[in-house]
Amino acid sequence: MELLDRLLAGERRALARAISCVEDQGPEARALLAGLYPHTGRAHVIGVTGAPGTGKSSLVNALARAYRAQGLTVGIIAVDPTSPFSGGALLGDRVRMRDLAGDQGTFIRSMATRGSLGGLAHTTGEVVLALDAAGFERILIETVGVGQAEVDIASAAHTTVVVEAPGLGDEIQAIKAGVLEIADLFAVNKADREGADHTVMALKMMQGLGPSMGHHGVSAGSGKPGHQPGEQPDGTWLPPITKTVAIHGEGVPALRDWIEEHAAYLERSGLRGRWELARARTELEHILRDRLMATLLARQPAGQLPDEILEAVAGRRLDPYTAAERLLAGREPSEPVR
Amino acid sequence: MELLDRLLAGERRALARAISCVEDQGPEARALLAGLYPHTGRAHVIGVTGAPGTGKSSLVNALARAYRAQGLTVGIIAVDPTSPFSGGALLGDRVRMRDLAGDQGTFIRSMATRGSLGGLAHTTGEVVLALDAAGFERILIETVGVGQAEVDIASAAHTTVVVEAPGLGDEIQAIKAGVLEIADLFAVNKADREGADHTVMALKMMQGLGPSMGHHGVSAGSGKPGHQPGEQPDGTWLPPITKTVAIHGEGVPALRDWIEEHAAYLERSGLRGRWELARARTELEHILRDRLMATLLARQPAGQLPDEILEAVAGRRLDPYTAAERLLAGREPSEPVR
Repeated sequence: MELLDRLLAGERRALARAISCVEDQGPEARALLAGLYPHTGRAHVIGVTGAPGTGKSSLVNALARAYRAQGLTVGIIAVDPTSPFSGGALLGDRVRMRDLAGDQGTFIRSMATRGSLGGLAHTTGEVVLALDAAGFERILIETVGVGQAEVDIASAAHTTVVVEAPGLGDEIQAIKAGVLEIADLFAVNKADREGADHTVMALKMMQGLGPSMGHHGVSAGSGKPGHQPGEQPDGTWLPPITKTVAIHGEGVPALRDWIEEHAAYLERSGLRGRWELARARTELEHILRDRLMATLLARQPAGQLPDEILEAVAGRRLDPYTAAERLLAGREPSEPVR
Repeated sequence: MELLDRLLAGERRALARAISCVEDQGPEARALLAGLYPHTGRAHVIGVTGAPGTGKSSLVNALARAYRAQGLTVGIIAVDPTSPFSGGALLGDRVRMRDLAGDQGTFIRSMATRGSLGGLAHTTGEVVLALDAAGFERILIETVGVGQAEVDIASAAHTTVVVEAPGLGDEIQAIKAGVLEIADLFAVNKADREGADHTVMALKMMQGLGPSMGHHGVSAGSGKPGHQPGEQPDGTWLPPITKTVAIHGEGVPALRDWIEEHAAYLERSGLRGRWELARARTELEHILRDRLMATLLARQPAGQLPDEILEAVAGRRLDPYTAAERLLAGREPSEPVR
């Protein structure tokens, strides 16, 4: 496939077209992804997530520059929330990171997500594959939101950075979002603001309270790796807490170094291999579900779920479980119940 | 089924057990839900969502009391974010709403969500069915989070209330989360705080800028319905902006009345019927996908996806699309590519 060859050769326009093709989920996408796939698995994928107002975008920007300073190439995926009604994002982020624009070692893509939540995670994963195959060595995924989006990102990234900022009611946010369990690293951004130390303390306290941690000692979170966070004597990982001021680049090299340390930890502990297996399972199941459903729909008279069944279910004359049984059995939609 | 009969008779313990059964997704769940289903479709389902710190929980509490004051029964579902690793929420919300406890006309359930995002939406929808069948007339779903969770809730609720609060960087939050497109009503909570009018103005401005709105006039957002928001001459709905102080109950009756007005609008416009059809489709597709996948897995030698295929995919020796083809064709896992 010509597009694939051009992408593998590093042609940016081919990569952009490939990503669009993947986002559209058209018929070409499958062949393209199948062709890409053997060339993937080299990039380290970093999720950056946190509440609005924490400065995630600036931090992603600064991290990208910190990686570029080491000569590493960086792909950036900015994920906007889906609208279930318009199928599109309200604001594009394409213009957001101008100072990286024009750099051949950086590729920025803002995704207008559509469809289901599962679809979001899946398509993001496929865009990661395209960037990976195109040779980008570090891939940063930024998601907006606190909550489900963070959980989602955790499954698509090797390393998840949770961004907090002073004065946003951090304890509540972090606890509610369950971020303790998905964070591999914490970045307390806007650390030049009042309350940054309070935020660091709140995170430390939560680490002490967290399940399966059993470890209260965390370094001062000064942005420099202390000897306590990171890999523990028992082989687990205690998420370091770093302070950053993204707009000035402060603390960002230290954050980058912690990400690299986490990547090395995943590798030597065998966790990266287990992650790849879990990812393969998720990916394969997603594809299978889609294909199975498509096959079932193709068997229906109009190529879609019959209106009379949907109307019977909507009108509560037929329950969806019985309706599913009938469709799976390939029987005619018989008498609705009651 | 005894449990079903007891639930339909209004026995609270039966309802609690039924919900646990639904959450566990055990073998009983399907039969139970099939039995419940014909008794559903009566409740009006209200999603309440917004960023941490906006006072959603207090507002849900106050709304429930405002409905109880009218003699309506209220079910409350509090959804915590999933942790992909523990399968549970960090904090239960079960103790949160003590002043409603002991009231036979209220039923509160906090959900420890597990599994996938799609799973969250699906299980929440099934718990709604149980509350609906048990006769609860209004069902309030509170979700934590900004972003995907809000989009999710929008598909499970007839009416979505987006909660904002002064001083949380509202414009950014609202725009990024795409809330304009999912909100049927806005509640500016903590309206006794400085900046409440600014928040109202920011929302009004966004309504003016929003797609498919074309309508800049919004009432003063004083908590009383003006003549401009709500149903428009062209039959569309302009989301009212109400101010509330949930902890004192201020503005909450007006918010409740707007919710009821929206419910009436959905009914008379035929949108409720279309919503029910869309919901039936979503529900049926979800069930079908699960059943099709279960059937495929049951055909595998060990009842699960073969390890050698997962390992080949994880090791990039086989792409997941080709792997899916082979599994669907029922062929042996043949030679990995390359």
